Amino acid sequence: MNATIINIGDELLIGQVVNTNAARMSQMLTGAGIQVHNVFTIGDDAYDIKLYLELGLQAADIVLITGGLGPTKDDITKTTLCEFFGSELYENEIALENVTRLMKAFGRELTPINRQQALVPRCCTVINNVLGTAPCMWFEVEGTTPQKVVVSLPGVPFEMVNLMETEVIPRLQTHFHTSAILNKNILVQGIGESFLSDLIEPWETALPHHIRLAYLPQAGMLKLRLTARGTEQAVLKQEVDTAVAGLYQIARQYIVGEDFETLPELLAHLMHNAGQTLASAESCTGGAIASKLTALAGASDYFLGGVVSYSNEVKEKALGVKHSTLTAHGAVSEETVREMVTGVRNRLGSDYAVATTGIAGPGGGTPTKPVGTVWIGIATPKQVIAKRMHFTGRREQVIERTCNEVYASLIRIVKEELA
Amino acid sequence: MNATIINIGDELLIGQVVNTNAARMSQMLTGAGIQVHNVFTIGDDAYDIKLYLELGLQAADIVLITGGLGPTKDDITKTTLCEFFGSELYENEIALENVTRLMKAFGRELTPINRQQALVPRCCTVINNVLGTAPCMWFEVEGTTPQKVVVSLPGVPFEMVNLMETEVIPRLQTHFHTSAILNKNILVQGIGESFLSDLIEPWETALPHHIRLAYLPQAGMLKLRLTARGTEQAVLKQEVDTAVAGLYQIARQYIVGEDFETLPELLAHLMHNAGQTLASAESCTGGAIASKLTALAGASDYFLGGVVSYSNEVKEKALGVKHSTLTAHGAVSEETVREMVTGVRNRLGSDYAVATTGIAGPGGGTPTKPVGTVWIGIATPKQVIAKRMHFTGRREQVIERTCNEVYASLIRIVKEELA
Repeated sequence: MNATIINIGDELLIGQVVNTNAARMSQMLTGAGIQVHNVFTIGDDAYDIKLYLELGLQAADIVLITGGLGPTKDDITKTTLCEFFGSELYENEIALENVTRLMKAFGRELTPINRQQALVPRCCTVINNVLGTAPCMWFEVEGTTPQKVVVSLPGVPFEMVNLMETEVIPRLQTHFHTSAILNKNILVQGIGESFLSDLIEPWETALPHHIRLAYLPQAGMLKLRLTARGTEQAVLKQEVDTAVAGLYQIARQYIVGEDFETLPELLAHLMHNAGQTLASAESCTGGAIASKLTALAGASDYFLGGVVSYSNEVKEKALGVKHSTLTAHGAVSEETVREMVTGVRNRLGSDYAVATTGIAGPGGGTPTKPVGTVWIGIATPKQVIAKRMHFTGRREQVIERTCNEVYASLIRIVKEELA
Repeated sequence: MNATIINIGDELLIGQVVNTNAARMSQMLTGAGIQVHNVFTIGDDAYDIKLYLELGLQAADIVLITGGLGPTKDDITKTTLCEFFGSELYENEIALENVTRLMKAFGRELTPINRQQALVPRCCTVINNVLGTAPCMWFEVEGTTPQKVVVSLPGVPFEMVNLMETEVIPRLQTHFHTSAILNKNILVQGIGESFLSDLIEPWETALPHHIRLAYLPQAGMLKLRLTARGTEQAVLKQEVDTAVAGLYQIARQYIVGEDFETLPELLAHLMHNAGQTLASAESCTGGAIASKLTALAGASDYFLGGVVSYSNEVKEKALGVKHSTLTAHGAVSEETVREMVTGVRNRLGSDYAVATTGIAGPGGGTPTKPVGTVWIGIATPKQVIAKRMHFTGRREQVIERTCNEVYASLIRIVKEELA
């Protein structure tokens, strides 16, 4: 069972908006045992919409379309779907009720342009979009068994996600008989892709044919994803567990954890279960460490807060870093990061604390402290650790790598100390 | 002059990695007057790579390919390009030198698998990738005038960006005669897409045919992008200026600024020019406000730092919010946000300060303070302002909207006070 995703929108083609919808949808589909065959991003162009809808239906059983449903002139998806399916627009009751309800909620009157949102092709089933005015539309293609499905969704991310989770995925699973699938993530850090590849090649080659390995590099870390397909979930689980055990035998030292998508998720799980608290003191990462942690629901369970000590004054005022330390060793130094991490741990009263100070670039580098030089500090109930890193890449890359280095180092220390 | 982008990688199809490359490349191409016709995301599959390369070349003059160049088994782009162009792999000197240099820099020896990175099709021109081991390859298609171009780039974002900026875009501009293009951004906030559309429809309809308007909605704000194509830059500028002047006449109150891609960029520009400093106190946004500001180079010019006061204890300890205030009015209240914003401004000694406290969800809502309730505080040399917002959507949406509301409010106040 496979799917093609078509994301419509000129904004995607001028690069003003990153296409996060494709990733979200792919994750949800993969998790449901539906393989994404490919993704087309096209403009609000009737010819292209029809062409890639056709190509999509040739290659896959399901075509999911997002975008082009807005009330503005450049949105033509609905009329184009009418042409494709030889249907016509009519005002749908469910959709009209929904638009009316939402306008009332916003305290606005229903304008003619709002009302157009309730027009849909006659041949589709309307799936109500409770979060927005654009209706979701379900089409079944005549003369295919089981009938291939085309679903048109709004491009607004949170509306799309809600519709996919609550309506589209369940309906697809009932409409098609989806085969058993098992995904297993292993988070690896401290080794480059090619070196890991050398290390685990014999193991990879020995994997059963129905278990696929994907390398998913992120800044400063690597996620290995095993995907197993078969008929029985229980059997797949056994086979995957065996494979993972084999991986531990050859790469244990690089494995940070399993079963989580990201290091922040793993860290949150660890801290929560251990009932430990965390605080952060960020200079070069400028709040990125805290914001990635607090982006996850339930962060307040363990994350007390932090200080973004961007200027030296703030390092002194808010963290108690000594003025003499800054003048003698500079802001990017072992001494400073140690005072930052101890300062934030003491002042915020957390069990654990992390700190970063470095040169993210592009400016600010010196011969002795080039761009990419970063000091990381970790304070625990038992110890204070500081390490110097040198990261390559641009500003955002350096920030990303620093975050992942901090998360991975902390996870390793917490596991060790709480073992 | 138009282009097709092909992003290769199974990781993109299981949704583990968001395809930011497509957006980056589209931005750079659009800026260079090359229109992106469409984007294909496909797996590491020889059949598909050839099929969409063919489709891409039918629709466009340029096909840019990323990914599938890694040293691991699942990377097949180079061999597939050989099949497509009827060529063969050979060890390229420039590429080998580069791999050797990088391995030495990492303090690693050159493994056989690293060395494979130096293999490229004979028919291509190698563009040296100074930041990574995968070479960039330039192909010209026989029998087309001007010869259509296929460029294969590494999928690692910062390597791709560097190659595009320094090598690929300049070479494309020399190879093809690119027409004059002018892009103009107008940042709009405080009105929904459909209401703005109603408001400006007469203006939009009256735009000259060669000037296109795109609606680029972001969380809590809207970017309007005018794209003008013609022969003379000067003429285009005049026409676009006239159009923008017309827009101000009907929508001035909603326009936050021009010529910037994002509100943080505009804010940074304003604060820098005014020589004013900023500090932040974040509860529900958890560091997102600071991290978006510090993601931009030069943030240290005006951003002193901030406090992520996630727990009430930190609100008291680090910001001096009164315990009585928290108990009497709760963390999500006007009183608390006022004490947060004054506290951070006084303690960090900034000219301006912003603060947020709210319920991002999914949990934590109450009948009187449902999920999406957010208090925003802004302190200036002249005044302290607090406003209550109610945002719809999921956690990330609420955080995003809060950030944009804070940036837009601050920009308006700073413009007003410094006028």
